[in-house]
Amino acid sequence: MMNITNFQKTRHTRRCYTLELSISFTGDTSKYVQIYNELKQAILRKKLLAHEQLPSKRTLAKTLDVSVHTIKEAYEQLLAEGYIYSKERSGYFIAPFEFEWGQQLKQHTYASSIPVVDNIKFDFNNGHVDKEAFPISIWHRLLKKHFNVNNLTTSSWQGEAILRTEIARYVERSRGVACEASQVFVYSGTQSQLQALCHFLGPKTHVGLEEPGFKRIRATLQQCGLTTHAIPVDNSGVTIPKKSIHMLYTTPAHQFPLGMVMPVERRVALLQWATSENAYIFEDDYDSEFRYKGLPIPSLAKMDQLQRVIYSGTFSKTLIPSLRISYMILPKSLVEDFILFNQEQKSVVSKIDQLALADFIAQGLFDKHLAKMRTIYRKKQQTLLAAINVNFSEEFEVIGEKSGLHIVVKLPKRLSEQDAINLAQEVGIKVYPCSTSYQKKTKHAMVLIGYGGLTFEQIKEGIKLLGAVWQSFTPH
Amino acid sequence: MMNITNFQKTRHTRRCYTLELSISFTGDTSKYVQIYNELKQAILRKKLLAHEQLPSKRTLAKTLDVSVHTIKEAYEQLLAEGYIYSKERSGYFIAPFEFEWGQQLKQHTYASSIPVVDNIKFDFNNGHVDKEAFPISIWHRLLKKHFNVNNLTTSSWQGEAILRTEIARYVERSRGVACEASQVFVYSGTQSQLQALCHFLGPKTHVGLEEPGFKRIRATLQQCGLTTHAIPVDNSGVTIPKKSIHMLYTTPAHQFPLGMVMPVERRVALLQWATSENAYIFEDDYDSEFRYKGLPIPSLAKMDQLQRVIYSGTFSKTLIPSLRISYMILPKSLVEDFILFNQEQKSVVSKIDQLALADFIAQGLFDKHLAKMRTIYRKKQQTLLAAINVNFSEEFEVIGEKSGLHIVVKLPKRLSEQDAINLAQEVGIKVYPCSTSYQKKTKHAMVLIGYGGLTFEQIKEGIKLLGAVWQSFTPH
Repeated sequence: MMNITNFQKTRHTRRCYTLELSISFTGDTSKYVQIYNELKQAILRKKLLAHEQLPSKRTLAKTLDVSVHTIKEAYEQLLAEGYIYSKERSGYFIAPFEFEWGQQLKQHTYASSIPVVDNIKFDFNNGHVDKEAFPISIWHRLLKKHFNVNNLTTSSWQGEAILRTEIARYVERSRGVACEASQVFVYSGTQSQLQALCHFLGPKTHVGLEEPGFKRIRATLQQCGLTTHAIPVDNSGVTIPKKSIHMLYTTPAHQFPLGMVMPVERRVALLQWATSENAYIFEDDYDSEFRYKGLPIPSLAKMDQLQRVIYSGTFSKTLIPSLRISYMILPKSLVEDFILFNQEQKSVVSKIDQLALADFIAQGLFDKHLAKMRTIYRKKQQTLLAAINVNFSEEFEVIGEKSGLHIVVKLPKRLSEQDAINLAQEVGIKVYPCSTSYQKKTKHAMVLIGYGGLTFEQIKEGIKLLGAVWQSFTPH
Repeated sequence: MMNITNFQKTRHTRRCYTLELSISFTGDTSKYVQIYNELKQAILRKKLLAHEQLPSKRTLAKTLDVSVHTIKEAYEQLLAEGYIYSKERSGYFIAPFEFEWGQQLKQHTYASSIPVVDNIKFDFNNGHVDKEAFPISIWHRLLKKHFNVNNLTTSSWQGEAILRTEIARYVERSRGVACEASQVFVYSGTQSQLQALCHFLGPKTHVGLEEPGFKRIRATLQQCGLTTHAIPVDNSGVTIPKKSIHMLYTTPAHQFPLGMVMPVERRVALLQWATSENAYIFEDDYDSEFRYKGLPIPSLAKMDQLQRVIYSGTFSKTLIPSLRISYMILPKSLVEDFILFNQEQKSVVSKIDQLALADFIAQGLFDKHLAKMRTIYRKKQQTLLAAINVNFSEEFEVIGEKSGLHIVVKLPKRLSEQDAINLAQEVGIKVYPCSTSYQKKTKHAMVLIGYGGLTFEQIKEGIKLLGAVWQSFTPH
């Protein structure tokens, strides 16, 4: 059944687990056989790996409340059958071996841990940021500073007060949103804060969503059982809802995915609508920090002074997505009820990460990082647009380039969205569909091109390859 | 209006923010006045703090797309009014001052960041762990190792494959739950994974909850719109549900709050019930790692081989609560649908933390830590029980001491739960009510005493104080 290969191999790091078997001994079989069987199964299923050390006989005997002799018998049986080996004065270790039915097992075991192999060289993902520019050593110093015994408890549900204070100060100085720390709620992503809001508002709530818009937002609302309505987007961003809804989700600073900046007139009109309808506006300011053209336009939350507007921001674009820290700022009129509603909830964000981030902002390092990233992303966008200008014909139209970390390219009639994506993939490039952002069928074929995560050279080379393969394509 | 105190004070750390004003200039007032007003408001609201540096005139002019002269006029006005001061060859800084209406503002501003002052010396909180025993330096080394440029992206929604693999191996060797990494889902707390499950099951689902039981669990289910039913707990733990429900939430290893361990017979009966009713059992194994008396009893998930049982575990008790990492293990029959349902969701757990934890487990450090903590908590419990034995009369009964990080003390008739808590508070001790765990009125007055977070000395001294004040009390 098995082919024992090598007992001498000891250069592997040995792990010594405090193995805890949970066995409900039955009367039918002797205890040592039951222990032997449990261990054998653990070895065969690779839950105990080659060269791992078994607990001492004494330890295991104590754990299982049996005699040392019983364990000795079990170990000797395993030894005799070659499942384990012993080393003098060291103890017992799992034997390395191949087993005939191994292939069969492997098909199921850890299938999901096998990485997907693809040929993608340049991924124009709009969710990627410039990781090289992130101040890893500073961040690490901050983690070390705050990772101490006083900070090992759960954060308060609303988030660390010191972080909420810094966020309140930041959104006021950067986006003009005057608010207090008590209005700020810390979450682990835009979806997580929207989910909490959905629970608070209840399943009978009707929410308007931009069409086209973030499909992840729609999925979250629908998971929570709320009813969603598609509200069309025109050249000024989302239009005034004609349906009767309780809340409108919108991305005025940089509409997702089309990228237009909502002009002041539309903002005023939306706020008037919200006031007259007693509706709320959920302003998702997901990448407003990166603005390249045109005058700054005040956020809806600033114009409305957080009366009808719920403001949502994230550190996934401005810092790194792996951090999973975001924030939602509520009108004062909602704060008390929201806290009461969530009185049994716990924080979902690491306290250490929150304290490190608060310190990072308080020391002025966040603003400094933003200033640096604004310059980098502006240059990356310029590189991208210049490359598109050189490599793409005039049939292709670029939209949404005033801000953010992605642009949209409208494709010529001869090129469908799927063809464009497939052709790109053939030359090792990943671009993204816009059609998935629509609930209805789209009029224009468009693709989304993000540039935050690629280097200048990668952007240039990627667009060159893309231009060549798109320009030469004719549908059959 | 204001009393400028000290312009010379420069030993504060200066912060240089890349101040970003977002102003929608109107035609009525000159631009410099509008800029001056914005800055003044930011200073008065303490969003710009004393001695912070303002951006250079040139920089701000560029940012706001106005002439340098306009900024100069705004700055000079602020200077004239004492809001800012200038230093040669350095630039402009915010002036320190007191303002008359400051008190009024302060009432609202950052109110929530003021820590609650109380006289609690010993907090017998059941959610606290022994923070001193946590291997901070090892953990910090792991964070440093994994905090590199390759790990700054969002984790996959289900959690890092390497962590899920280690969790699968851990639950098999410690709890006998044979599963694959593909069945493991990583979340930021038991509530967060239960919430995801609630969305998946839908609002028409009826869930049975232990009575008494975790109020946080009930709150989460109700937030998600599911219907809950109280299922009574007897001496063997939760009883077989008589109502028609789709899922039963239970804590068989250490019932919360009463602390009994469910015997095998009840476990078998529950599994038979689940199979015949086609219902699921949500097994919350929140502190099963700490078991002090009696033989290990296999988890429901092991007995049932993850057919009808959903298994839930957390690192909040075994490591530290501030980490916010937990896991849910689903039956294979649910995995595919659950992944599909959540295809638009993103991970809510830091990738770096996940990788550090996976490494911690893989290196055998987690098992080592658990073995150490088991000894520490056993000794702490012994200390607690010995102290109770000495200081409390026989009117007081201890229950639930076979495992976990808390015990329950049944109070004598002369002492109500509220009286017991108030008396404790008077001598600087915090103990917790059991009545909040009940949906109905309780028969017995009981308090919950956790001991994970206190030192041996604190436990002894706290119980002594508690004994004195409880023993001498007679109701009026």
